Amino acid sequence: MCMVMSVAVAGASGYAGGELLRLLSTHPEFEVGAVTAHSSAGAPLGRHHPHLTPLADRIIEPTTADVLAGHDVVALALPHGASGEIAAQLPDGTLVLDCGADHRLTDPEAWQLFYGTEHSGSWPYGLPELIHADGSKQRDRLGGVTRVAVPGCNVTAVTLALAPGLAAGVIAPDDIVAVLANGPSGAGKSPKTHLLASEIMGAASPYGVGGVHRHIPEIEQNLSLAADAPVSLSFTPTLVPMSRGILATVTAKLAGGGITTGDVRSAWEKAYADEPFVHLLPDGQWPTTAGTLGANTAHIQVTVDERAGRVVAVAAIDNLAKGTAGAAVQCANLALGLPETLGLPTMGVAP
Amino acid sequence: MCMVMSVAVAGASGYAGGELLRLLSTHPEFEVGAVTAHSSAGAPLGRHHPHLTPLADRIIEPTTADVLAGHDVVALALPHGASGEIAAQLPDGTLVLDCGADHRLTDPEAWQLFYGTEHSGSWPYGLPELIHADGSKQRDRLGGVTRVAVPGCNVTAVTLALAPGLAAGVIAPDDIVAVLANGPSGAGKSPKTHLLASEIMGAASPYGVGGVHRHIPEIEQNLSLAADAPVSLSFTPTLVPMSRGILATVTAKLAGGGITTGDVRSAWEKAYADEPFVHLLPDGQWPTTAGTLGANTAHIQVTVDERAGRVVAVAAIDNLAKGTAGAAVQCANLALGLPETLGLPTMGVAP
Amino acid sequence: MCMVMSVAVAGASGYAGGELLRLLSTHPEFEVGAVTAHSSAGAPLGRHHPHLTPLADRIIEPTTADVLAGHDVVALALPHGASGEIAAQLPDGTLVLDCGADHRLTDPEAWQLFYGTEHSGSWPYGLPELIHADGSKQRDRLGGVTRVAVPGCNVTAVTLALAPGLAAGVIAPDDIVAVLANGPSGAGKSPKTHLLASEIMGAASPYGVGGVHRHIPEIEQNLSLAADAPVSLSFTPTLVPMSRGILATVTAKLAGGGITTGDVRSAWEKAYADEPFVHLLPDGQWPTTAGTLGANTAHIQVTVDERAGRVVAVAAIDNLAKGTAGAAVQCANLALGLPETLGLPTMGVAP
Amino acid sequence: MCMVMSVAVAGASGYAGGELLRLLSTHPEFEVGAVTAHSSAGAPLGRHHPHLTPLADRIIEPTTADVLAGHDVVALALPHGASGEIAAQLPDGTLVLDCGADHRLTDPEAWQLFYGTEHSGSWPYGLPELIHADGSKQRDRLGGVTRVAVPGCNVTAVTLALAPGLAAGVIAPDDIVAVLANGPSGAGKSPKTHLLASEIMGAASPYGVGGVHRHIPEIEQNLSLAADAPVSLSFTPTLVPMSRGILATVTAKLAGGGITTGDVRSAWEKAYADEPFVHLLPDGQWPTTAGTLGANTAHIQVTVDERAGRVVAVAAIDNLAKGTAGAAVQCANLALGLPETLGLPTMGVAP
Repeated sequence: MCMVMSVAVAGASGYAGGELLRLLSTHPEFEVGAVTAHSSAGAPLGRHHPHLTPLADRIIEPTTADVLAGHDVVALALPHGASGEIAAQLPDGTLVLDCGADHRLTDPEAWQLFYGTEHSGSWPYGLPELIHADGSKQRDRLGGVTRVAVPGCNVTAVTLALAPGLAAGVIAPDDIVAVLANGPSGAGKSPKTHLLASEIMGAASPYGVGGVHRHIPEIEQNLSLAADAPVSLSFTPTLVPMSRGILATVTAKLAGGGITTGDVRSAWEKAYADEPFVHLLPDGQWPTTAGTLGANTAHIQVTVDERAGRVVAVAAIDNLAKGTAGAAVQCANLALGLPETLGLPTMGVAP
Repeated sequence: MCMVMSVAVAGASGYAGGELLRLLSTHPEFEVGAVTAHSSAGAPLGRHHPHLTPLADRIIEPTTADVLAGHDVVALALPHGASGEIAAQLPDGTLVLDCGADHRLTDPEAWQLFYGTEHSGSWPYGLPELIHADGSKQRDRLGGVTRVAVPGCNVTAVTLALAPGLAAGVIAPDDIVAVLANGPSGAGKSPKTHLLASEIMGAASPYGVGGVHRHIPEIEQNLSLAADAPVSLSFTPTLVPMSRGILATVTAKLAGGGITTGDVRSAWEKAYADEPFVHLLPDGQWPTTAGTLGANTAHIQVTVDERAGRVVAVAAIDNLAKGTAGAAVQCANLALGLPETLGLPTMGVAP
Repeated sequence: MCMVMSVAVAGASGYAGGELLRLLSTHPEFEVGAVTAHSSAGAPLGRHHPHLTPLADRIIEPTTADVLAGHDVVALALPHGASGEIAAQLPDGTLVLDCGADHRLTDPEAWQLFYGTEHSGSWPYGLPELIHADGSKQRDRLGGVTRVAVPGCNVTAVTLALAPGLAAGVIAPDDIVAVLANGPSGAGKSPKTHLLASEIMGAASPYGVGGVHRHIPEIEQNLSLAADAPVSLSFTPTLVPMSRGILATVTAKLAGGGITTGDVRSAWEKAYADEPFVHLLPDGQWPTTAGTLGANTAHIQVTVDERAGRVVAVAAIDNLAKGTAGAAVQCANLALGLPETLGLPTMGVAP
Repeated sequence: MCMVMSVAVAGASGYAGGELLRLLSTHPEFEVGAVTAHSSAGAPLGRHHPHLTPLADRIIEPTTADVLAGHDVVALALPHGASGEIAAQLPDGTLVLDCGADHRLTDPEAWQLFYGTEHSGSWPYGLPELIHADGSKQRDRLGGVTRVAVPGCNVTAVTLALAPGLAAGVIAPDDIVAVLANGPSGAGKSPKTHLLASEIMGAASPYGVGGVHRHIPEIEQNLSLAADAPVSLSFTPTLVPMSRGILATVTAKLAGGGITTGDVRSAWEKAYADEPFVHLLPDGQWPTTAGTLGANTAHIQVTVDERAGRVVAVAAIDNLAKGTAGAAVQCANLALGLPETLGLPTMGVAP
């Protein structure tokens, strides 16, 4: 009996759209339906994504509610602010996966402060491994839902790195510092001078410094759920010369003097022992983004800096896979009652 | 009924070994058996290949015939010259895939000339898409074999780029020029100064220039089968700053004055129309190695330079995938009577 | 007595403009005058070229003949087709260095064929090391001139690689094949999708394949001067992931059976023995683009492939230095009667 | 009258040695004397540093006190722990520049703790721009000295980023967090698997995490001088895919509630207003390592994150230039009474 579900991808010519198509194409329960975009409509997909060889001849359709309707699942890989309107036109029963920011924040004021537009409302938040202060995981809130707000890629990396320590109470929530190394694919495919290869290769540079990056309220929202307390965060992403990947180095103060390295490690072990995609590496081995390229995995390591009184936790993910498209598919699996890991790669492509 | 076959991988800590494990792990008819190496024996696989997350705790065993015996398939990813001896100790009925050079050349003199050691003998050659002068393909010679010589990565790129024109008689075999851009993973994982990141990044440099590269006799062997005539080849590989990938730019003279661009294009179209992994791109679109990363695909384009009287054919492959490990799995499928495409990715990971 | 001359740079916000400013700033006989551009006019130079620290506060002026007039030297780093008009408005006595293509070709028909617009006329050609068939060098034609057509970067690499063999008659002019590895800075600073870092990193891809690249007639013009005969050229550039640099691999057939490796090497040695910027590397050492980064040098090596009957010559240059801005300064030195090497770096920045 | 001084470089085949030679060669008051190394002795320099074209034929001599003696200046670019012994054999009047760590720390216990060997003693510390709590600069302590401990590259970046705020009392010394993006050339030229191009390209990974990195006591030593108080530091370097460059992102808490962004900015402005090599960028422009490549410059920016209550300061340097060889030459200028900026590039090579 055929139960394969059709999935439409809006924003198919971009990087997140391409990664969605790559993962959906090999998923045993999904088939790729309409692929849509704005300015690329009418072109063959292969012109925009030569790596998607079997889909090269598919013609990109315009992104309209009409084209998207009639699919079992619709994945939106649109610029921030663009998904609210189109999502509102889709049937309630359709599973809609929003890879943009529009429905992630629960606090309309935080949205207004960082995005400056009207809030589109809040959807169930698609980070299954997010541990809450009560020990539950976010995945418990995703079964049967028809709307999913897929997390931001930087947010996923920082949250997965630090949440276990906050949930276990071994680190303090009030002075978190996160510095990230980011591949430029996270900045999208629109041609901009500062994203040119000549500018990026051989260069590292920060952006969105000083508490103004739009990912901050989303990270704080997540970490507050883990800590059951407000958190304070200094957050600095850095563009480095690799296409994909995020390495998040996150530090926080130990919650008190008596907390041992064993306590810290045990908090992370407990949080991720049964997770299929989030792996605490063996003691002494530190994550490299290359270990997660193309996979839906996160690699984590944590240690205590006794001299500085700080825990240092590091997470590596692929911003397009676990950071975006992989998370979307993982949430679709959960929402539809499929095995959570179905169709998702757990091995990266390296070197 | 369970028919899953066990596959041992010798040389598991290297780049080719890692790629074999990545592909074998998701192949529906194979399961990974022993993973072996020399100096890395005793270490967990995750120390050498952090990207192979689900296999991270597997312990590397020593490479001995005893450890390898008892598997249905043995894949050898050993340095050139090392596979002959170990292969001789494996049972005749075991399918042995040699990713090294030892059994590729049919001419012992050519081996002696380019490698300087005694020839280990010739095995069925594992490039299924190689077109012979009689129009047959190499895959016809691979059904049921128990030994496969997996082609060299540069060889695969140059052969796939040019063989159709030779088989169709539209290009001349006597003055072929190939220049390649190569990622350094093809040079292996042994630490050498000239392969350091600081040396490679920001640099392009040729190696093995002037007719001395060991891949030359193998390319000539293939192209002679296509042309049914001796071929002459100038071959220059170039190290460029990307981990994986080969871009082969190959030119040859038109076979005669009356040959049109249409004749040329039609030769390539005919050769690759039904190939699952080798794709002639749409007219005007040129291959990029990024389009094949991690996939068992080759992307090809060809044109005629009227002013120079030369055909220019370009092939892009991933040296570790279609260039090595993917080819090995593809040949294993053929040898074992499985569908040729089973378990092999046809989509690259990009950007 | 102070004789420092003022130099204006038009197109100062681009890559070639930036490199001109870098070299002019440390030249003992030049001082930077007006820096001009179109859309960037009004901005501080440091926004466009943060590496030019001492010039960071200079304000970019509009590119007009009025602004440029009154300088001793004017360097034009403008898009192809833009320099003809502005150059025509500059005084005859001003030394004008055109880094664009407009005045390079002597044959109006070749210009028309490859550029499709009206020819702006031909200026003295600025490749001092170009050897003519009569043994003279192009520098002999540059003393006292007031107009210089600075060569194309690809052209410089291919010409320097092969001209000695043609001038000495040891190679045949009728079947030259050149394949180049190119950093994307040669394609300029305008934001285009295919030049994004995410597209370029991890990728090699050819462009302008099949005899259509605009650098072809210029290379043929140079090599014909060396050979005193028409030449035939197959030319394929390839984008690879390094900001700067060109590695040109150029092959040509030996002119006859009796020519030895010694004859070949001696032709190159003779041509470049006294050149301050063009270095034939020691036997067995091959050029790497990293060895020329930021320098006005070209590194050359040549060998004979006996089996293929071809000479293989390889040249490495920095496309922005010896390929553009360095060549411009070198020619200015010659035109003004200064020492040819004045103010020009002969050491690269590596690793 | 000729006063050019001879400089010997020990460790000439490594990356720091090569950069010293590049800078010394164009310095108007220095000439390169002996170039020495251990395992490379006897080889021409051009085999190890093809970019140093004019020095390519110089033969590397063995590193012995005899060879080094008789020069006016000796620069030691040796592994940590190797310079103490050779330095002890050089005449007191010779200016010795130690680019290694041996003589940087004033506290023998800190040396013992982080290096585990006996302390070689402390030399005048070569970071001229280091601001002390009393407002003096470290350059005041370098005139006429004959021994200089050149700072570590990471140390220079972190110190320059943060010291002004500590000296001005606007930030608190007790909870500093530094995360760095580092090019692998800082890890040297010895071939190691984790430094291979295939491992580094496409990857970001931390190293020396958790308070164990040997640069920590040196940073603390510097920042304590600025703060006139003990400092506490969490320090995490990260390898990213660029040959050269350090981007240090350093945060510290505001010293108190009443401190404004203006107070902060003014502290940095005051510290660096007259510095020839350290540049506070215009408000809103953030450093990129590409802006300092090959130059003796540091680019700095600072802002206040009001929400997090932290100052974020970012410094970009070239680890081999301002981070090592440039600093050595700058200190030699100071020690010898030459103009501090003599022979030192203030423009980077970009893109």
